[in-house]
Amino acid sequence: MFDALNESITGRAITGGVLNIEVADIRPFSADKKHFKCDDAPFGGGAGMIMTPQPIYDAINAVDPHHTCRRIFLSPRGMPFTAKRAKELADGYAEILLLCGRYEGVDQRVIDLCIDEEISVGDYVLSGGEPAAIVVADAVARFVPGVLGNAESAADESFQSGLLEYPQYTRPAVFMELPVPEVLISGHHGMVEEWRRGQAEKITRERRPDLLGDRD
Amino acid sequence: MFDALNESITGRAITGGVLNIEVADIRPFSADKKHFKCDDAPFGGGAGMIMTPQPIYDAINAVDPHHTCRRIFLSPRGMPFTAKRAKELADGYAEILLLCGRYEGVDQRVIDLCIDEEISVGDYVLSGGEPAAIVVADAVARFVPGVLGNAESAADESFQSGLLEYPQYTRPAVFMELPVPEVLISGHHGMVEEWRRGQAEKITRERRPDLLGDRD
Repeated sequence: MFDALNESITGRAITGGVLNIEVADIRPFSADKKHFKCDDAPFGGGAGMIMTPQPIYDAINAVDPHHTCRRIFLSPRGMPFTAKRAKELADGYAEILLLCGRYEGVDQRVIDLCIDEEISVGDYVLSGGEPAAIVVADAVARFVPGVLGNAESAADESFQSGLLEYPQYTRPAVFMELPVPEVLISGHHGMVEEWRRGQAEKITRERRPDLLGDRD
Repeated sequence: MFDALNESITGRAITGGVLNIEVADIRPFSADKKHFKCDDAPFGGGAGMIMTPQPIYDAINAVDPHHTCRRIFLSPRGMPFTAKRAKELADGYAEILLLCGRYEGVDQRVIDLCIDEEISVGDYVLSGGEPAAIVVADAVARFVPGVLGNAESAADESFQSGLLEYPQYTRPAVFMELPVPEVLISGHHGMVEEWRRGQAEKITRERRPDLLGDRD
């Protein structure tokens, strides 16, 4: 599932030695050496199976024996993941451990014992933590020095200014009878900046007025 | 990058014929048959490259010539993706097209011409739309009839009740000296339900008071 991280910008950073990603399978850590069982029915009843604490506990302690990693559990019950949190994680921790559960549930005790924080990538439910881990790894990696090239920048993106990004246009100057906004080909840097700031404010007000209240 | 969808619950649904996922590469649709160029510098200046409109326009019209798909562009500028929207998409559309851009930008005109809605999986920036597309495909698929087995259920999960999910426990009854909450082994169904509802309300109030205001 994590092959996605070997592509694109994270893939280039891994190849370049700027980023390292290791994947550990929890199942081999099961004390049940016959069936490698890792789940069981929930106490108190209910649909689905719950991941038992032992395989996860042993897997985490094998991967991070001295608790030097920031240990994060990906869960819809976690605190919302944001660009700000991505930057804090990139700046604050050399190593991050992402625990992927199945969202039918993980025994709460292993979360209480082993995990530093719970993060949610959004208000929806996934089949497992893996797509969320790919999202977090990608978003955090972009703030690791050397991952983005010189031509790229995390500074001008959505959320960095507290606003959604302004619309972008490239060649051709006219596409399907639609011209690029005239100001962008005016060559007048100040007017371009002003137009972009106005557009960013307009689109944020229309789509995400909640963000305007949060601005620093 | 989309191999992740061949695993887990979506993988089983694809194998079982309940779900079909096709991936189309945009690059071969470039009119530049020598270098298959798909990006260019932004009008008005700025960091990064912008995807040109022509290859995307032609790719979308090849994949969905009669506009029978719901066409979604994955973008941090989109409306926030939620469990509610995932269910609406699963219920409302037989086919969904997910356009993955590079987040340095896509020419706005091809969005204006071709796209029905913009969706954001969260308030962070990714290297490309692909991880977001995996997230949306997984979350929507869970609401497609036949994708989840009988033992699973999307009804009891976080957000379905407007609350985060209560903690889950499974065997053993005591792990690392931590016992399961007594009520869960009481066998008293009504008390279990009451405890779970109380826990769900408590964790939602502590972590996501914003959700409590949104309840239907």
